[in-house]
Amino acid sequence: MSSYLNKSIVELNEIKEALLESYKQFKMQNLNLDMSRGKPCKEQLDISNDMLMIDINESSIDLRNYGGIDGITEVKKLFASILEVSENEVIISGNSSLSLMHDSVMRALLLGVYGGYKPWSHGKVKFLCPSPGYDRHFSICELFGIEMIPIEINRDGPNIAKIRELVENDDSIKGIWCIPKYSNPTGITYSDEIVSKMARLKPKAKDFRIFWDNAYVVHHLDNNKKDKLKNILEECKKANNEDIVYIFSSTSKITYAGSGISVLAASTNNIKFIKNQLSIQTIGPDKINQYRHFKFLKSTENIEKHMEKHAHIIRPKFEKVIEILDIELNGLEIADWTNPNGGYFISFNSLDGCAKNIVTLALEAGVKLTEAGATYPYKNDQYDKNIRIAPTFPPIEELEKAMELFCVCVKLACINKIIQDRIN
Amino acid sequence: MSSYLNKSIVELNEIKEALLESYKQFKMQNLNLDMSRGKPCKEQLDISNDMLMIDINESSIDLRNYGGIDGITEVKKLFASILEVSENEVIISGNSSLSLMHDSVMRALLLGVYGGYKPWSHGKVKFLCPSPGYDRHFSICELFGIEMIPIEINRDGPNIAKIRELVENDDSIKGIWCIPKYSNPTGITYSDEIVSKMARLKPKAKDFRIFWDNAYVVHHLDNNKKDKLKNILEECKKANNEDIVYIFSSTSKITYAGSGISVLAASTNNIKFIKNQLSIQTIGPDKINQYRHFKFLKSTENIEKHMEKHAHIIRPKFEKVIEILDIELNGLEIADWTNPNGGYFISFNSLDGCAKNIVTLALEAGVKLTEAGATYPYKNDQYDKNIRIAPTFPPIEELEKAMELFCVCVKLACINKIIQDRIN
Repeated sequence: MSSYLNKSIVELNEIKEALLESYKQFKMQNLNLDMSRGKPCKEQLDISNDMLMIDINESSIDLRNYGGIDGITEVKKLFASILEVSENEVIISGNSSLSLMHDSVMRALLLGVYGGYKPWSHGKVKFLCPSPGYDRHFSICELFGIEMIPIEINRDGPNIAKIRELVENDDSIKGIWCIPKYSNPTGITYSDEIVSKMARLKPKAKDFRIFWDNAYVVHHLDNNKKDKLKNILEECKKANNEDIVYIFSSTSKITYAGSGISVLAASTNNIKFIKNQLSIQTIGPDKINQYRHFKFLKSTENIEKHMEKHAHIIRPKFEKVIEILDIELNGLEIADWTNPNGGYFISFNSLDGCAKNIVTLALEAGVKLTEAGATYPYKNDQYDKNIRIAPTFPPIEELEKAMELFCVCVKLACINKIIQDRIN
Repeated sequence: MSSYLNKSIVELNEIKEALLESYKQFKMQNLNLDMSRGKPCKEQLDISNDMLMIDINESSIDLRNYGGIDGITEVKKLFASILEVSENEVIISGNSSLSLMHDSVMRALLLGVYGGYKPWSHGKVKFLCPSPGYDRHFSICELFGIEMIPIEINRDGPNIAKIRELVENDDSIKGIWCIPKYSNPTGITYSDEIVSKMARLKPKAKDFRIFWDNAYVVHHLDNNKKDKLKNILEECKKANNEDIVYIFSSTSKITYAGSGISVLAASTNNIKFIKNQLSIQTIGPDKINQYRHFKFLKSTENIEKHMEKHAHIIRPKFEKVIEILDIELNGLEIADWTNPNGGYFISFNSLDGCAKNIVTLALEAGVKLTEAGATYPYKNDQYDKNIRIAPTFPPIEELEKAMELFCVCVKLACINKIIQDRIN
């Protein structure tokens, strides 16, 4: 297909007429499809159903009673091995790693962090936010009035020179949100060099923390194309900087999104400090569910096999999205998109100034996408071009329909923009 | 038995010699018993084992996926009925009501409460602490540097006149901890009059909250002697004061201590406000476990029957403790203790200045009791006389042995105190 950018206004108006007709046809179908969140689909949830059949009586402790603040030994070992850390460097918690992150920020604000001399909230607090990123990270900052500074994210990770410059000169910068593997939404994995440099940051704020949300640690889409992420805690140790990072992960997209287990990994200093605070918040996590996970997931090798089942279900959905984008938009010079090796999202960029219109057009024709701008701090995508596509939840036939409509909306919004720009 | 207080030093020394001999005998048995916490015993946990067999497929929603921030409808209805509130006045959460309380305090400190004009932490914060009370409540205050003011607790509840006077005159007093039914550790239930007056408090701090920890709402020890607690939210509504109270409860001592579900009940204004904040902390609770609870517990009537099974197991333990205390200590005028209709504890008072010594003596002979002082803010029992006895966890034979040793320790410590006082 030839670029829209080289077409005359007359040609563009002709195309637009045809697109409006297609759009009308879609509207008449009364679609009601939701592609707004990275939710696993029913078939994915089904592959963990044997977990609910686990007999808990083989455990050496009474899982039903109080206690075990940092989780049961078996699960600590398993997660330590997944995250390549030691057993005494992890805390296993309830069903939500988001809670672990939220609570870590909240505690730091009120109580400070290990080695920090006062609570964060005693002064101005800023966070660096590689963007596009995860809206729920940004919501935590917004709730607590933490100022967010967007950081450009490239193929190999965030702009590390910029990060370095900022953290070395501003002691109100207390943290950075990172999704280092199969990043939400760009799908990129941080390069070894970026990880090494992150581990060697020397922030002016001695109580600075890297929030390393390793949500997609084993979430490959293709067995033959697995991204490899460098072990940041190991790198930190080499640099005598091991207290700078909190690592988070969960089984939300391994077993059940609503009934998984979560993990925080960090230096033993951090873990001891957090465990003390945690013991005031709870008498312990749901150990029965932890044990179920251990018995069902068994080992890192078995988890790999389990994740292949997920990939088998969702890879065709990613392929379908990419296929339709290729067919419909390639060569038009109005959009680009990612083709990730893992994770839950495809990141889509239209011409500047079109994302909001695209999302609105789709919604009005019955397809709900993630809100335009949601992937940026304060929902403010300054170029109004990024849209997060979440292909996992809908059945593939619905996904196909939704993506076809999506492409019509993209073309329409972009043509309108081009025409408008020519007129002005 | 005749009072120790009327005996001569010679007589007391004779008794002391015999007690030291008994104590020596106990020591030689190398006991290793733990009565320190209010933990359910194995037999209690067993009565809920059918819960793990529940088929979750009958649910109308996919319980395994994300969502449902305030809990599933069925469980909201059930808890609303237990707590005598409406379905839209409850939030059902994870396995720990302690977390709900901790997080409510933490959020109020950083973000304020509904109708409050600024976060608590922008000024000095104090809490009223009816004492003896629950050590984990006090630990939350201690963690966050909240100043605790002990309030005397009587047969009908805390000293309401004192509470009124304090909250009406000091706007840094932001909260009060209450366990209104089968109180930890005294076992008392607040009278209707006290509940009415609590509901009508008009604190100087407009952002004051009553933390109403109704942990033992259905935890009767005897079907024929059930305490009845007045509905505080209803009373608050009558007084146009409905936003003043947060009610907490859980199934920790109904089903499983470690894998129960928890509830927060409050006015719809409070609930809406908290739900908004909660939606930043988590995408939702473990709905599978909530559904299991609903299917297993079914109705308030069924819960009553279920709680009778608990009572059947633990009532003999309470009776055994009371029996031994009666036999060993009645008439000596060195101690008094409670005989509650429900809950998990017996509150024991020795002569002033003896509790720490009693607990130490018991520990040295192999019986771990709750730390003396733990039932007071800052672990400071100014009279050093209160000890919390937790009879539920040990098997009855162990309990019997532990209580016999306990009585020897009480007599020894008190005789020492009397002799010392006479000499000085």
